Formats: sequence, C-alpha cells, structure tokens
Amino acid sequence: MSGRRRDDPHALLEAARGGDRSATARLLSLIERGGPEAREVGRLAYPLSGQGYTIGLTGAPGAGKSTLTSALIGHLRALDLEVAVLAIDPSSPFTGGAILGDRVRMQDHAVDPGVFIRSMATRGHLGGLSLATPEAVRLLDAVGKRWLVVETVGVGQVEVEIAGKADTTVVVVNPGWGDSVQANKAGLMEVADVFVINKADRSGADQTRRDLEQMLELSEFGSDAWRPPILATVATGSEGVGDLWDAIIAHRTHAEASGELERRRSVRRRLELSEVIVERLRERARDLCTGERWEQITDEVITNRLDPWSAVDQMLDAIDA
Amino acid sequence: MSGRRRDDPHALLEAARGGDRSATARLLSLIERGGPEAREVGRLAYPLSGQGYTIGLTGAPGAGKSTLTSALIGHLRALDLEVAVLAIDPSSPFTGGAILGDRVRMQDHAVDPGVFIRSMATRGHLGGLSLATPEAVRLLDAVGKRWLVVETVGVGQVEVEIAGKADTTVVVVNPGWGDSVQANKAGLMEVADVFVINKADRSGADQTRRDLEQMLELSEFGSDAWRPPILATVATGSEGVGDLWDAIIAHRTHAEASGELERRRSVRRRLELSEVIVERLRERARDLCTGERWEQITDEVITNRLDPWSAVDQMLDAIDA
Repeated sequence: MSGRRRDDPHALLEAARGGDRSATARLLSLIERGGPEAREVGRLAYPLSGQGYTIGLTGAPGAGKSTLTSALIGHLRALDLEVAVLAIDPSSPFTGGAILGDRVRMQDHAVDPGVFIRSMATRGHLGGLSLATPEAVRLLDAVGKRWLVVETVGVGQVEVEIAGKADTTVVVVNPGWGDSVQANKAGLMEVADVFVINKADRSGADQTRRDLEQMLELSEFGSDAWRPPILATVATGSEGVGDLWDAIIAHRTHAEASGELERRRSVRRRLELSEVIVERLRERARDLCTGERWEQITDEVITNRLDPWSAVDQMLDAIDA
Repeated sequence: MSGRRRDDPHALLEAARGGDRSATARLLSLIERGGPEAREVGRLAYPLSGQGYTIGLTGAPGAGKSTLTSALIGHLRALDLEVAVLAIDPSSPFTGGAILGDRVRMQDHAVDPGVFIRSMATRGHLGGLSLATPEAVRLLDAVGKRWLVVETVGVGQVEVEIAGKADTTVVVVNPGWGDSVQANKAGLMEVADVFVINKADRSGADQTRRDLEQMLELSEFGSDAWRPPILATVATGSEGVGDLWDAIIAHRTHAEASGELERRRSVRRRLELSEVIVERLRERARDLCTGERWEQITDEVITNRLDPWSAVDQMLDAIDA
C-alpha cells in the first residue's frame, strides 16, 4: 500500500479484491465510521456486488448461535466454499463477550484464508447498524465473498430487523424455549425461513418441535409458499449441520424459483434507500444548523424553555428563509 | 368524550389530567403512531411536565425484571405513591410474552387506579422507540404521574440506550451472570446507577457480587461521584425491594445535589432534539419526493441499477433546484 493514501477507497477496494484481508478490514472500518468515505466505498462496491448470498442467523442469547455459525463454517469449508461472517451480537464470542473456549474455537477459522470473520459494533449512533450492515454485506460481496453469514441476537428492535433482511433467515431456539418468556417469539416467528432446535440432545426437544409446528399451523401458507422446516442440531458436535445447510440451499432454490428472493431484495433496497435519505438529511441538518440562531434554539431546548418540536419548526423556517 | 373529536389532543389531555385513564391510553397511542398528532401531543405536554422522576429497569431476558417491577409497584403503593410503568421489553409479561402466572400477578395492579401500565411496541420504524419513549414519559408526567418506571430488555442497541436515559437506571442481574456470555455486560455496566442481583437465593449470588465489585473497582470514580450500590433481591417474595427503593431514593438525592440530574436531563433533551430533527426531515423528504422524478430514481435503486448514495444525491439536487 506504499505510495497510496491509507484510506483511499479505490486503492483499498482494488487490494481487497486481490485478496488483501487487511484492506477488506480497513474498508469495513470506513463503513462502520460512516460519512463521505463510507459513501464512496458504497458507491464503488455497488456495481461489483450481486453475486453473494446472505444467511441471517438469530436467536435468544445463549441459544448457541456462534457455535452453530462455527460449525456451519466448518461444513462450508469441507465443501470448499468460502464464507464471510458479520457478527452483530453483544453476546457473541465473535464480538468479544467470549469465554475462552469459544474464542479458541473461532481462532481455528480465523487463520483460514477461506474464512473472513468480522464483528460490528452494536452500540453507537441510532440507525448506524441498520445502515452499516447492508453496506458491509455489499462490500464483502464486492470483494468476492459468495456466502455471507450475518449473526445477530434475536432480542432488540434493530437486531431482529437486521436478521430478517437476509436472503435466508435461520432462527435458533433451544429445548424449553416453548415454555420460556425469554425470546421475542412473534418477531422471530415472522422472520424465520428455517428453524433450528439447537442443543437438541437436551430434554424437551420434542415438545419444542411440537410447539413450533403448532405455531406454524396457525400461520397462513399459500399452496406454493415456503413453509419453514424445523431442524435439530447439536452444534458443539456439529450434529445436524449438514441438514441445516441442505435446508438453506432448499430455501434458496425455492426463493429463486418463486421470485421471492427478488421481491425480498427489492424491499431491502427500498429500506436501505430510505435509511440513506435520513442519513444524508441528518448531515445536511448538521451543516446548516451551526449558526448563532441554531445555538440559541438548542440552548432553549436543553434548558427546557422550548419543546423540541417547536424548536425544529423554527429551525426549518430558518433554513427555508 | 361525546361531542368532541375522538383524537383531539387538547380534549384528550384535559380528560387525562382529570383522571380519565382511557384518554391517557389514547394519547399514548397517538404518540406511538407518530406524525402531526403525536407532535401536537408533545407540544401540549411539554409545559405541563417536569415533576416526574424516571426509573429505568433493564437486564438480560429472564432476569426477573417484570417480577421486580411488580414488587416495586407493590412497595410504592404501600407508601401511597402512584406509579406508571412503560414496558418496552419483548420478553416482558407486560408486553405479552407472558406465562399465565405473571399475567395474573400483573392484573392485581391493573385494576388499581394508582397504577398505570402500558406496553410499547418494540418493532416498527427504526428510531421509533427512541423518539416515542421520551414522548410517552413526558405525557405520563404531564398527566400527573410522579414515578415512572421504564422497563427494557438489556440486549439490543436501542433498548439499552433507552434504559440509560432514565434519571436512575437499575440493572438487574442473576447469580451466575458473571460466568455467562448472555448479557451485554459493557453496555449494562455503563448505564447502571444501581445493581440488583435478583433470584439472590440461588447459588452463586456471592460470586456474582464479587464479580460486580471487581468490575466497579476497575472503573474510575471521583471522590464525590456516585458509586453504584449492589443489592440482593428475591422479587417473587418481594425480598429486598425496600432496600432497592431506598437505593433509588439515595441516588436521586445524590444526583439532585451534585447537579448530575440536571446534566443528564440536558443530554437527554439534546438527544431528543436531534431525533426530532431527523424525524421532521424524514417527513419533509417524504413530502418533497413524491414526483415522477423521485419514483424513477427509487425504481432504479430497487432494480439495482443505481446505488442508494448516488440516488439520494440526485434527489437532493432536485430539491435544491
């Protein structure tokens, strides 16, 4: 990279497409940070992307999502497929909530050039994740990753939404889940394309399967609609991971043939567009609102003399004047 | 309400301040829905608010937050204090993830006129909760509620942020939490004013206390800064709930005397202002971008012929022209 500006998106993207992992990591950092350079990365990556397939993996904290992701990576590598993982889960070993054993297990993959793992910050500016995640996925797609796993925790508004925006969404539950109040059931049911009962060697797995089947029976499925299958895995021993992969492929095949994949991607692009609009307007507001009048209005709100809605009306009037 | 428009914010606020609970519920629905009527409610409530005190209660799913909230309600009622609860936790019995026992327990309070419980939708438009929650708190304040409990799940970007914006934030953990990877520890540590080890009759409570103390020792506290106390409760038996209340009062007293409360509320108002700016700009974009040119740009993005960043640039150019 000598002789080039360290953060030049053009040069970084070229290097990343040539297999330079640190360039890929650097580009993802630019996306995470936002602003003009992130936009430039997005613009450049756009025409280069479109070949990748995104798998969302979500579920309650402790459901074993990271272990399952790790086992899935192993399965894909055995099939000689390359995979990239974005972990957006504060309880994930990928994102640093690790116990040592998990970290070590991850490290096996971390030195494999066919595997790229990246954790995204889960905190910071509102909406940041919703915008940064599709951009990061597109970047990884543009640098040649064909299989992309996005792991999020299945609790929290933003996180469930992100998982639901994948091409195929896998929802991971555990035996006993049916009785517990721990999971955002309705939200998870809605985004699931494939259900996995992980830790299926524990008692209660059959009951959990019956619960899920019952819930699915309450849902309306058209005659040619996809009906989420229910799989059982023991991720720590990689049991059932081959079946999970087959189910993902079956869903992909169905979604491609039925037009559902294209429809879903259109919805996603529309959502991303609206996020980008808000982001750009936010920037514009920042640029416009640095004058004395703005400081005065802000001060009135902070000291509780003016409500924020009236303040913003005054501000917008000032912009239009 | 006969002879008045059902959704007239003025009339509803008057009725709510006179003790009409259904009017309060209706106003909260307007806030949840957003738009011009929500803004009008916000404007009207603003000058009437400022007497209420907000307690945030958060922790991992299954930590017993709702049971603790319920026990706290009982304690406050015994002190003849009125309380309002906003539940923003998909795993909360308040928000409908209930097992029957919890629901029944809640119903005891639901018929008490000194208690107002409301669940807020956890899904929907991005940023919706971040804006709707402070508005809902202000409305409850404006209709005379002096003690406001905001219960959120301590996982997820938006949810932890919302809990951290309370006047006093209580973080609920369980024995064994120290060893688990289930909680967004760093995020929770940062927002905690009071720690509660709930289910403290289970084994491991002492170790959890030592873990928390150790983490607190790693933090920097000024000589006159508030240091979060660590309490033990068994919420199902209301054990330790009096101590929790005393700790909340102690934190309030300290925050008021040190100026921390005023500082925190200023930060909150500034954040709310910036959310309102984004919301208004989003509306403005919707108004401005309904023409033929806009439809065309949107279509190019949805069909993947144009990247969203370039699309928004074109759109903004059109607005400025």
